[in-house]
Amino acid sequence: MHTIALTPGCPAGIGPELFPVALSKANIKTGTKFIWCGSVELFEKHANKLDIKVSRSKQNFSIDGLNGEVQLIATLSDNEDPALNVLPGQSNDKALISQKNALLKAVELAQKKQINAIVTGPIRKAALSNINGKSFPGQTELLHYYLPLDNNPPLMCFAGYDFILGLVSVHVQLKNVSTQITKKHIEQCIARLTTAAAHYFANPNCDVRLTVLGLNPHAGENGLIGDEELKIISPTISKLKKQGVNITGPLAADGFFSHLDYLSELNKPHAVLAMYHDQGLIPYKILGKGNVTNCTSGLSLPRTSPAHGTADDIAGKYIAAPDSLIAAIELALRLPPSI
Amino acid sequence: MHTIALTPGCPAGIGPELFPVALSKANIKTGTKFIWCGSVELFEKHANKLDIKVSRSKQNFSIDGLNGEVQLIATLSDNEDPALNVLPGQSNDKALISQKNALLKAVELAQKKQINAIVTGPIRKAALSNINGKSFPGQTELLHYYLPLDNNPPLMCFAGYDFILGLVSVHVQLKNVSTQITKKHIEQCIARLTTAAAHYFANPNCDVRLTVLGLNPHAGENGLIGDEELKIISPTISKLKKQGVNITGPLAADGFFSHLDYLSELNKPHAVLAMYHDQGLIPYKILGKGNVTNCTSGLSLPRTSPAHGTADDIAGKYIAAPDSLIAAIELALRLPPSI
Repeated sequence: MHTIALTPGCPAGIGPELFPVALSKANIKTGTKFIWCGSVELFEKHANKLDIKVSRSKQNFSIDGLNGEVQLIATLSDNEDPALNVLPGQSNDKALISQKNALLKAVELAQKKQINAIVTGPIRKAALSNINGKSFPGQTELLHYYLPLDNNPPLMCFAGYDFILGLVSVHVQLKNVSTQITKKHIEQCIARLTTAAAHYFANPNCDVRLTVLGLNPHAGENGLIGDEELKIISPTISKLKKQGVNITGPLAADGFFSHLDYLSELNKPHAVLAMYHDQGLIPYKILGKGNVTNCTSGLSLPRTSPAHGTADDIAGKYIAAPDSLIAAIELALRLPPSI
Repeated sequence: MHTIALTPGCPAGIGPELFPVALSKANIKTGTKFIWCGSVELFEKHANKLDIKVSRSKQNFSIDGLNGEVQLIATLSDNEDPALNVLPGQSNDKALISQKNALLKAVELAQKKQINAIVTGPIRKAALSNINGKSFPGQTELLHYYLPLDNNPPLMCFAGYDFILGLVSVHVQLKNVSTQITKKHIEQCIARLTTAAAHYFANPNCDVRLTVLGLNPHAGENGLIGDEELKIISPTISKLKKQGVNITGPLAADGFFSHLDYLSELNKPHAVLAMYHDQGLIPYKILGKGNVTNCTSGLSLPRTSPAHGTADDIAGKYIAAPDSLIAAIELALRLPPSI
């Protein structure tokens, strides 16, 4: 049976307030156990505002109305949770410490093999600037540093629409994206994405159909607007095609996403590889509506996360939509050990 | 009454075949005159395939069923049209010459003030590599070179969804986009976009609400992922706000487009400025479906164009959707002289 670690995310953002409502609405099997990397009081504070009743016995707690066999265990006692001293929208040192500690606790649980998956709330990137002397651009990179499946880099993937999405580059300033477009890296991403798609569609032997986008406008228009397509992306695709990979591209991204409805079922991809953050996430979040969830391919266990940020402007108002976190919890529950 | 020049676009693409069907379906006022920058035979060849009947008297022609008062005039006689020697999907020198000549004819008509607007079909960019010794990245730049409203650069805009979209950079390779993000250029774009929005919404005194997107993922996340937002975009927005411009930004693009439905009517923008091609066009083409049309702000007359390319793979099959060209023709008919 599953045991899932939950990291609340930044306490100045919407993360902690979303967990009670998401857990009370998600489809969770009897016997599932959640390890809440924070205090019961943090959870209860938000649950109360949402009229979700929590029963507790020391650091074990449960949500009334939720299947009684679903148990939660807090990793912090109330008086040691720095997140309790943070106001909505007002990040401070305690907020940063609480996010960092929660992630390191999840890492520890994973290393000790006490959990099967991790669901992370949205953090503030500043919280990752000094983790045991190292700085990480995001949770994905931090988790991969401590919990790698192998030596290749992780792939940030998104699920919730008809296909899954992978990003070749993620939190990289736009002018530097091109430096991450190498044959080796694209091959690694395609390998990760293929595995992730097969797991996502619960068919390890599925002949995954992949679509790869170009980097430049019009996918470079045959070298007129940039040459990464001709020099890097196309040769990589050709090589993989020869190896039997079912792959198409590089396609012009604006045309691809606006013409999805015209694709026949047999031409619809299982997975799409975008070259950078906004190229993939702008359309994916429109198409997937609120149900988009982030998942990492390349860790020693599944990790999912809502696809939104801390949304400080609406934190503490209890109006944030829990759909993405619900999808993240449900996805973490159904993915096999190594995505 | 309006006289509109029509350039067929690349004869190896879908442009010429779309005009007969678009003209027969568009909402066109009695007395409108179209100058077709090609031969009657080119038009008729495609019209016949689509069971659209053309009546002609030398180079004057009309479409049966269309309002009889709507006249078309061809600029080329049948034997001098190089486009007639081009097969679908097979561009050649004659194809390139025909596109170039058509554009230069439209320019000449505009300079002689014989037309009120131009609707351009989709071209192949190679056709613009040598126009009287100059090379242009696109039709927008070529038309602006010959038909400028003033000394500032033109703005490529798109219409068809609830707001109009402007692009700070267009056919620029991704790694060079950042070099086009300057305070001066963004200010020029905002001025153009404001004018275009007021004209588009047919209200010259409208208090145009503008949204400006960031360049980097998460709009730079306060300098963590690129500093163009902090150094260039935000200061420009602040300056304009002080001058009374109704403007918001820089916003994270993925969040902005996926949350449009949550904006109250009073917070919905009239116009959105994206920093680069795919950042704006990927979402706009999804949201606007087939009705998206390109228009240029900064010319001495309105110019519109379908938002798609030559689509060589389906040229000659007569299956291409005319919606974008219909929208382009209708928009050209209703825009005031200087957008």
